Amino acid sequence: MPLYKAPLRDIKFLMRDVLGYFPHYETLSNGADATPDMVDAILEGIATLSEQVLAPLNLSGDQEGCYFNNGEVTTPQGFKQAYQEFVDGGWQGLSFPEEFGGQNLPTSINLIKAEIIGSANWSFAMYPGLSMGCINTILEYGTELQKQQYMPSLVSGQWSGTMCLTEPQCGTDLAQVKTKAELNEADGSYRITGTKIFISAGEHDLTDNIIHIVLARLPGAPKGTRGISLFIVPKVNIDDAGELTSRNSVTCGSIEHKMGIRASATAVLNFDGATGYLIGKENEGLQAMFTFMNTARIGTALQGVCHAEASYQGALAYAKERQSMRALSGKKQPDDVADAIIWHPDVRKMLLTQRAFAQGGRAMIFHAAKIADKMFNAIVAGDTQKQQAYDDELGFYTPILKGFITELGVESANLGMQVFGGHGYIHEHGMEQIARDARIATLYEGTTGIQSLDLLGRKVLMANKGQAIRDFSKVIFAFAKPHLFSRGPIGRMARTLCKRAIEWNVMTLRIMLGAAKDRELVGSASVDYLMYSGYVMMGYFWALQAEKSATLIKNGQGVESNDFYTANIQTAEFYFERLLPRASTHKQSALASTKSVMQMKNENFNFL
Amino acid sequence: MPLYKAPLRDIKFLMRDVLGYFPHYETLSNGADATPDMVDAILEGIATLSEQVLAPLNLSGDQEGCYFNNGEVTTPQGFKQAYQEFVDGGWQGLSFPEEFGGQNLPTSINLIKAEIIGSANWSFAMYPGLSMGCINTILEYGTELQKQQYMPSLVSGQWSGTMCLTEPQCGTDLAQVKTKAELNEADGSYRITGTKIFISAGEHDLTDNIIHIVLARLPGAPKGTRGISLFIVPKVNIDDAGELTSRNSVTCGSIEHKMGIRASATAVLNFDGATGYLIGKENEGLQAMFTFMNTARIGTALQGVCHAEASYQGALAYAKERQSMRALSGKKQPDDVADAIIWHPDVRKMLLTQRAFAQGGRAMIFHAAKIADKMFNAIVAGDTQKQQAYDDELGFYTPILKGFITELGVESANLGMQVFGGHGYIHEHGMEQIARDARIATLYEGTTGIQSLDLLGRKVLMANKGQAIRDFSKVIFAFAKPHLFSRGPIGRMARTLCKRAIEWNVMTLRIMLGAAKDRELVGSASVDYLMYSGYVMMGYFWALQAEKSATLIKNGQGVESNDFYTANIQTAEFYFERLLPRASTHKQSALASTKSVMQMKNENFNFL
Repeated sequence: MPLYKAPLRDIKFLMRDVLGYFPHYETLSNGADATPDMVDAILEGIATLSEQVLAPLNLSGDQEGCYFNNGEVTTPQGFKQAYQEFVDGGWQGLSFPEEFGGQNLPTSINLIKAEIIGSANWSFAMYPGLSMGCINTILEYGTELQKQQYMPSLVSGQWSGTMCLTEPQCGTDLAQVKTKAELNEADGSYRITGTKIFISAGEHDLTDNIIHIVLARLPGAPKGTRGISLFIVPKVNIDDAGELTSRNSVTCGSIEHKMGIRASATAVLNFDGATGYLIGKENEGLQAMFTFMNTARIGTALQGVCHAEASYQGALAYAKERQSMRALSGKKQPDDVADAIIWHPDVRKMLLTQRAFAQGGRAMIFHAAKIADKMFNAIVAGDTQKQQAYDDELGFYTPILKGFITELGVESANLGMQVFGGHGYIHEHGMEQIARDARIATLYEGTTGIQSLDLLGRKVLMANKGQAIRDFSKVIFAFAKPHLFSRGPIGRMARTLCKRAIEWNVMTLRIMLGAAKDRELVGSASVDYLMYSGYVMMGYFWALQAEKSATLIKNGQGVESNDFYTANIQTAEFYFERLLPRASTHKQSALASTKSVMQMKNENFNFL
Repeated sequence: MPLYKAPLRDIKFLMRDVLGYFPHYETLSNGADATPDMVDAILEGIATLSEQVLAPLNLSGDQEGCYFNNGEVTTPQGFKQAYQEFVDGGWQGLSFPEEFGGQNLPTSINLIKAEIIGSANWSFAMYPGLSMGCINTILEYGTELQKQQYMPSLVSGQWSGTMCLTEPQCGTDLAQVKTKAELNEADGSYRITGTKIFISAGEHDLTDNIIHIVLARLPGAPKGTRGISLFIVPKVNIDDAGELTSRNSVTCGSIEHKMGIRASATAVLNFDGATGYLIGKENEGLQAMFTFMNTARIGTALQGVCHAEASYQGALAYAKERQSMRALSGKKQPDDVADAIIWHPDVRKMLLTQRAFAQGGRAMIFHAAKIADKMFNAIVAGDTQKQQAYDDELGFYTPILKGFITELGVESANLGMQVFGGHGYIHEHGMEQIARDARIATLYEGTTGIQSLDLLGRKVLMANKGQAIRDFSKVIFAFAKPHLFSRGPIGRMARTLCKRAIEWNVMTLRIMLGAAKDRELVGSASVDYLMYSGYVMMGYFWALQAEKSATLIKNGQGVESNDFYTANIQTAEFYFERLLPRASTHKQSALASTKSVMQMKNENFNFL
C-alpha cells in the first residue's frame, strides 16, 4: 500500500514562489490571519491527520465498503473515529464565517486542505466535502432563521450536507427533474416527494443529522429548468433552536455498488412527503445552484491531482525498489542482481508524466483558487457586480480544470499501475484502488463531454466570442516576452507557448466561423478543444514554475535547495517535449469535419 | 448488463471479403475441412455457447469471484457446468491433431473462437486458454510417451494446463528465476522446489488434473536465462497410461485479489519437491518458451478486441435508449422528453472510436493469424526453416498487436463507461467490469513497455535494421498505388498512408542513427514508436476494409447490404480523421531528446 505523504514542499513552492499567495491574502477581507506561519501550521496539521489517520483507512475502507441495512448505512471501520478527529480539529470550518464557528480563512486554504485529505483517502474526503455545497447555499440564500438553524452544526461538522440533483431518468438534463414540492398551508413548509439517486454522503453514520438540498418542482411550475426550486430537507427534523426532533420521511432505499470510492456511500434517497423548506426564490433553484457550481467543480478537478499524486508516490517508491533487467546503457547497480526499474527510460517517462500532471494540475487549480478567494470576498461584501466578474473569470477555468485534470488523473493512476507491472493489478498494493477511485472523476459533477460543451459553447463562443482565449493569451505573451530571445529551456518554452497561444486563437476562430454554418461542429470539436486548452494552459503553468525556479537558483535566494528547483525545470522540459505535443493531435481532431462523426445512420453502428 | 452477441457479420466480412481466408485455408495441410460452410457452423456453435452459456455468467462470476480454502479453489457458480459444456462441444481441440482427439483445423479458427468466448466472459476463457501454451509445448517438445500421457486429456479439455514462469522477485526478468529441479536418480524424474506466482488457472475445480509447465534451474546450470529448463509437473501424478494416481506435492498457497478478471483464479503455487519431468533440452527452456510466445501474446492482444467489442455493444445500446438534452442541431425525437444521447456528436465520437478499435484490431489480429496458420503447418511438416521464417514474420506483428491493441482495449472500455455517465461506474450495468477486466491486458504476458522494447530493439533495429518497416511499407504502397489519384475517401486514405509509411521509415532511421550514439534512445522512444506503428498499421487495415467495401458496393456482389459496407467506409473515414492523427504526437515524443527523460537524478523525483 502506498504510504501517502503530503507534498507540502511542492504546495508551498506554488503558494510562496510561483503564485504570490501571501501578497494575495493581504488583499482579502478574510486574509489577515493567513500569514505564512499560520498557513504552515494549518498545512502541518492537515498533513498529520491525513498521513496518520486517514491514509491508513484508505485500503481497508475500500475492502470493507459501506454496509447497508434497512435504510441505515454503516461506514467502514475507523471512519467514525477519524471523522470525529476531523471535527475536533475544526477542519470543516476553515473558510466559513466566525459567527457560525468557522475560522474565516480564504477559501483557497480549504481547497488545499481538500487536496491533502483527498489524496490520503478520497472516499473519506467526500463526507465533509459534500457539505460544502450545502453550507454555501444556505450561507448565500438562506433566511436568517435558516442560517441560525443549520449553519453552526454544519460548519462544525457535527452535521453533514448533500446536494440532491440526480434522478433515475436524468443527471445532466435537469429539465427532466420530477420530484415535487407541495405547500403545507399550516406552516409554510413543503411536502417533498420523489426519488433521488447517486447522492454522495446521502446516508451514513458519521453525523447526527444530514441536511439535504433538494431540487424539486412546485405545482404549476414552468416546465424545464426554469421551474426548479431548492429545498432544505433535513434527515432529522429540527426546531427553531436547531435541536433535533423527529425523523423526517426521507429514507435511504439502497446504496450503489461502485467500481471505486467504495467507502463513500452513494445513496438512493426516497422522499415520501418529507418536510422541506424553500431556500431562495421559487423556480430559481437552478440559478442558485450555479452560484457554487464553479467551486464545486474545481473541488472535483482536485481529484485528478490527488490521484496523480498518490499514484506517483506509490509508483516512485516501487520503481526505486523493484529490480528487473539491466539498464541498456550499462549496469547501474552492479552489486545487485538487476537494476532498479527507475533506471529504465520508459519507467522514468511514466513517472515524469505523473509528476508533471500532479504538480501541473495543482498549479492550475491553485491559480483558480485565488480567483475563488476574491469571489467569496465579493459575496461577503455583497458586491454582486464583482462577484459576477470573478465568477465569470473562474467560469473559464472551471471546465478546463474539471475536464482536463480529471482525465489526467485517470491516466496517471493507470500509469502508476503500469509501473508496478502485474503487481499493479493486485488489490493489496493499493495501486489499482487509486485507478478505480480516480475513474469516477470524469463522470460525476458533469462528464468531460459536458465540461467541454460548457467551455467551448458557453464560456468561449457564446459568452464573448473567444475573448477568454485572447485574455489568457495575453497572460502567456506577457510571460513570454522577456524570454523570447533567450537560450536555454525557459526561452524554448516561451517561444513554444507563444506559437500555441496563436494557434489556440486561430483554432477558436475557425471553430466559431465553422459553427455558424454547422451546428454539430461545437459538439464534435468540444472534447478535443478542451483537452487542447488544458495542455496549453498547463504548459504555461509549467513554464512559470520553471522560470521562477531558474530565477531562484540564479539569485540564490530560494528556501529550497537547488536540486528542488532544478527538478521543476527538468519536469517542465519533459512536459514541453513529451506531453504538450499531444495538443497537436487534439487540434487536428477538433478541426476535422463533422461529417465523419455525423454521417453514420444510428441503425448502422453495428450489425449483429 | 450488456447482452453480448457475437459479431459474426464483422468476423465473416474480414475472413471472406477482406483477408481471403478461404483461399488461404486451401493452401494449408490442415485447411481442407475449413470450408465456408464448416467455418460458419463452427462460428454459430461458438456464438451460441458464448451468448447463452458464458455471457450470462460474466457479471455473477465477477461478483462472486473465486473462493480459496485450504489449497482448493472453487470457481463461481455455473462455471463448472459451463466448462463441461465447452468440453462436450469439443471446443478445446479445434486446432490440434486428430491423433490426440483434436479436429485438426487451422489455428486461426481457434483464435477466432477465443475472441468470441473471451468477449462473452474473459475470466472463463482463461481456463481453457491457458492450456494452449501447455499443449503446444508438449506437442512440440514432448517425448512420444509424454504426448501419449498428456495430450488426449488436454486436447479434450478434461485436463487443463498452465505456464509457470513468474516468481515473487521476477516477472519480466526471468534471469532471476530461482525454482530448482533436482534429479531423482531412481526414475529420471526431478524434484521441483520453489514458489511461482500469478499462475492463471493454477488451481481450480473445473478439471481432474492440471498440468503445469514449470521454468526451473538444474543444479550447476549457467546463471541467467541460459540456465533455465522446462518441466512438466502434473497436479495429480499419472501412470504411463495417463491414469491419475497420487497427488503431487504442488499446492496452491493462495489466490490473488485482483482489480478484475475476478472469476479467473490467479494462484500462488508452492512446489515442495514436486515430481516433474524434463521437457525439451536441459537449459534450453527459455528458447522453447519463445516458440509459442508470439501466438500466446497474440492471444492476449485479442483481449483488446474482446473488451472493445463488449464495451461497444453495451455503450451503443445505452446510447440509443438513454434520453438527455436536445441535439444542438434541433430536436431529433420531438415526441420524447429529450433526444437519445446517440444524437450528440461527442457520444458518437466515443462510439465510433470503440467501433474503429474493435474491428480495426480484429483485422490486424486476423491478418497475423494467417501467418500463425502457416507457421503451425511448418511445425507439423517439420520444416524448421519455414517455421523460423513465419515466426520471424509473426514476430514483427506480435509486439504491435499485444502492446497497441490492449492499450486500445483499455481506452475503449473506459469510453464505454463514459457513454453511460455516472451509471457506467455502477457494477450492475457491467461496464465498469469490462474496464477492470480489460486493464490486466497491458500488464501480463509482457507489459506494453516490454512489447515496445521487443518491437523497436529486437524486431526492428537489431534483427534487420528496419527491414520489417520497409516490408510493411511495401504492402502499404502496393495497396495505395491504384488509388493515389482517385477522389473520394479511398484516395485520401491511400495518400495519407503513403505519407505515414515514409514518415515511419524516416523515423526508424533517425532512431537507429540516434541509438548508435545514445543507448537510452531506444528505451525512451519505444512505447511511442510502438503506438505510432500501431496507428499506422491499423490505418492500413481500415483502408483495406474501406476499399473492399467500396468495391463490393460498386460491383453489387456483396453478401451484405450496402448499409453494412457503407458503415465500414464511414468508420474508416472517422479513423483517418480523428484517430490516426494521434500518430503525429507519438512521433514527436519518440524523436524527442533522451535528456528530458534521463537528466533527473533518481533522488530528485520528489521532495517529501
